[in-house]
Amino acid sequence: LDENNSSAGRLDGKMREKTLTMDTLNPQVKAVEYAVRGPIVLKAGEIERYLEEGGTKPFSEVIKANIGDAHAMGQQPITFLRQVVALCTFPELMDSPSFPEDAKWRARRILQGCGGHSLGSYSASPGVECIRKDIAAYIEQRDEGVPSDWENIYLTTGASDGIMTILRLLVSGKDSSRTGVMIPIPQYPLYSAAISEMDAVQVNYYLDEDNCWALDINELHRAYQAAKQHCQPRVICIINPGNPTGQVQSKKCIEEVLHFAYEENLFVMSDEVYQDNVYAPDCQFHSFKKVLYEMGPEYFSSVELVSFHSTSKGYTGECGFRGGYMEVINMDPEVKAQLVKLLSVRLCPPLAGQAAMDVIVNPPQPEEHTFKQFHQEKSSVLGALAEKAKLTEQILNSVPGIKCNPVQGSMYAFPRIFIPPKAVEEAKALGMQPDMLYCLRLLEETGICVVPGSGFGQKDRTYHFRMTILPSIEKLNVLLGKVRDFHISFLKEYSGLEWDEI
Amino acid sequence: LDENNSSAGRLDGKMREKTLTMDTLNPQVKAVEYAVRGPIVLKAGEIERYLEEGGTKPFSEVIKANIGDAHAMGQQPITFLRQVVALCTFPELMDSPSFPEDAKWRARRILQGCGGHSLGSYSASPGVECIRKDIAAYIEQRDEGVPSDWENIYLTTGASDGIMTILRLLVSGKDSSRTGVMIPIPQYPLYSAAISEMDAVQVNYYLDEDNCWALDINELHRAYQAAKQHCQPRVICIINPGNPTGQVQSKKCIEEVLHFAYEENLFVMSDEVYQDNVYAPDCQFHSFKKVLYEMGPEYFSSVELVSFHSTSKGYTGECGFRGGYMEVINMDPEVKAQLVKLLSVRLCPPLAGQAAMDVIVNPPQPEEHTFKQFHQEKSSVLGALAEKAKLTEQILNSVPGIKCNPVQGSMYAFPRIFIPPKAVEEAKALGMQPDMLYCLRLLEETGICVVPGSGFGQKDRTYHFRMTILPSIEKLNVLLGKVRDFHISFLKEYSGLEWDEI
Repeated sequence: LDENNSSAGRLDGKMREKTLTMDTLNPQVKAVEYAVRGPIVLKAGEIERYLEEGGTKPFSEVIKANIGDAHAMGQQPITFLRQVVALCTFPELMDSPSFPEDAKWRARRILQGCGGHSLGSYSASPGVECIRKDIAAYIEQRDEGVPSDWENIYLTTGASDGIMTILRLLVSGKDSSRTGVMIPIPQYPLYSAAISEMDAVQVNYYLDEDNCWALDINELHRAYQAAKQHCQPRVICIINPGNPTGQVQSKKCIEEVLHFAYEENLFVMSDEVYQDNVYAPDCQFHSFKKVLYEMGPEYFSSVELVSFHSTSKGYTGECGFRGGYMEVINMDPEVKAQLVKLLSVRLCPPLAGQAAMDVIVNPPQPEEHTFKQFHQEKSSVLGALAEKAKLTEQILNSVPGIKCNPVQGSMYAFPRIFIPPKAVEEAKALGMQPDMLYCLRLLEETGICVVPGSGFGQKDRTYHFRMTILPSIEKLNVLLGKVRDFHISFLKEYSGLEWDEI
Repeated sequence: LDENNSSAGRLDGKMREKTLTMDTLNPQVKAVEYAVRGPIVLKAGEIERYLEEGGTKPFSEVIKANIGDAHAMGQQPITFLRQVVALCTFPELMDSPSFPEDAKWRARRILQGCGGHSLGSYSASPGVECIRKDIAAYIEQRDEGVPSDWENIYLTTGASDGIMTILRLLVSGKDSSRTGVMIPIPQYPLYSAAISEMDAVQVNYYLDEDNCWALDINELHRAYQAAKQHCQPRVICIINPGNPTGQVQSKKCIEEVLHFAYEENLFVMSDEVYQDNVYAPDCQFHSFKKVLYEMGPEYFSSVELVSFHSTSKGYTGECGFRGGYMEVINMDPEVKAQLVKLLSVRLCPPLAGQAAMDVIVNPPQPEEHTFKQFHQEKSSVLGALAEKAKLTEQILNSVPGIKCNPVQGSMYAFPRIFIPPKAVEEAKALGMQPDMLYCLRLLEETGICVVPGSGFGQKDRTYHFRMTILPSIEKLNVLLGKVRDFHISFLKEYSGLEWDEI
């Protein structure tokens, strides 16, 4: 036996086969797609490394407008939030005169709720009790008195974790009458990824691009009836304000959705992580819970509703803390016990994220010393976002072959782009979606990283991309100018037209 | 239509049925059990609230020896770790003279690796690059030069998250040839919970209680051959040092396991979160990776191995940070890309936990100013744990009807308890496991919360409980004294024997 010749093989001369290969991999994992960090972002990383190593491109940096990652785009943290979390992390700072008392009492209160008064203890699986109570109080205030029970509040590891957990309760991979999950198209691809991973049936309802991406109740009926032919639709997911589409849902539309869910016995999952991100003067955030309450007790006491929130968006943009919560309404008490059991296997959400969430729901009040600075920082972030939402819409709509709905809320524009037939053909020949070809070219020629619309879903033969409005105004102006120039030259290249003709 | 009479019903008079009930709940969720936070812990919570509200019991406080939650038991955080995380959280502290330079440069370096130099940005899904590199360097040093590639390191949200993710790759619920996952019995119930949730087949191999809970290779063969009759065993999980059993595996035994995995084409998951928790003078931690390396290239280049580590255990006990990592060896490159895709759906592990992990793998060095304090704190925690391990074993073994193997490592004792036949019958009549009856009585009479052995698995007709060795020595002495008194009176009550006869 020559061991030198069989270094990767078995002692008996046969090669040892790998246990886990593409053939044996869980096929549901294989089916998962997540475009926000997909191929285009891997490519962006490669280009970044190439530039770092001294390579040259027609641009000096990659701008990652692919993901709602505010701090990475230069947004500054809210000082007060960081002060509270730092105090919780290193309580010796309680003696430091440079930390405000308003932050200190919040930190003390949070630590009082932690085992051994340490952020290093596990919390109860649904979260620290006083934080759950603060969240319930916040929701009551937000919803102008609609009652919120703190025992219905569950802290999560970002909103994604909560969404996955609730779907896990609802979906059994072994189910013979397969569970249908209704999601908007375009959607945030966490939903489609979770549906693939759990082997549920994705039931698409299309948002109305011609009507500012509004949700049309007739389309819900159509999608539901069509799905009933081959699965059991049991859940409806709504993202409001919309991701990637940036629309803010009207109260009337929310009522229609809830009435529909009531009639068809659907479980409602309401992704409201952008509730603080509303920019259009004629739009307002309405929580699904408040609208349900106002529809009367026959609705409020029966429709099963989970609403999700997060530290990652709003004016804080604290993505790295992985904080979030969900409020669960009308869940069967026995099922709730099962939910707690399931959460307990993962022990608890990160405590620093829980502390950050507490600051968001319990911010400085007008009578507190820290209010002025806090309020200034908050307004400055939200004011800039509103300005950038407007700017993005305006510049994109000035480009021939690009049409962009108003960015009423959230952090994204999802413009429709005209892709000439010759480019569509070229993409097909390359085995890729036409908007993927477009976005790859945009990345390679300008360094701008956006996500193809095909990663979110879109109507056949329409093409889009999602970009964040998070870069600074200065950078956003440059970025949009580059998109404009790129788009025009792309059209020229593939349609053989001159500028005047477009 | 009388709306007042149908407040919870439909407008048409029919009651609206709930969508999610125990009947429609995902049956795999229903099958999940997690004793560490199970019924006994819920009961402990009730008693705590009862005491808080002024109720009286034969004890004044509940002592939670059910979970490895060091800080909740009074263990102090490592100052240096908290300084680094606080600096990362609130970088204004870089100007503070009360923070050591050693901590500042680490914090600066971590922030340098974060988007926008903020802990509030998402990291890459596998974690911050410089932290992955620090971990690889740490592993190389720990394993005396065995190479570690930083691209094989993936940060996780605690070790639990990593374990679930790897199992997700390996297990398909739809698989007709069902995937068998070999786990030790007794085991940490994350494993059985994950197996239930994913609908894999749990393949038990029994640890040898008469031989200090050692792993017997013949038992592995037996379990494997028996399982092959009804499933496809593809994974073997090892917990070393053991949880709940506290044993430290010998190098010879690890070699045998790896040889077995090599021969039977098994994927190896090595849970090494207690690698710093070894107390017995004649024991030493051997990493599975190092042993694999020493077995020669035919093994080291082929056996698929994932090792897990965490911030929650060791001498730091930072559970609330939810930090951890896994090192993945010999994974098929295409599968690795699938792993990254799956991780990306959850975006990234919490950044504070990543920073905490970095301190653990990159602690103060002898030439640094902070070394002395750091070393003192570390030695003090580990020294106390060693003392408590010994104390626990000694006192428990002094009780008639209790037999406790040496606590060689980890944070738990798993004593075998004699339960008289009359108590076994009573438990059966109540529909509960005999050791559940025992633990409930212990809780109600002494306030001590431990977990029944049945929650971890044990040989038929043997009974155990798991308790942590984390309380302070003073408290642990009191606790063990109470266990002793309780056990003796329990035996008396159910066997009608006097002390002398036991």
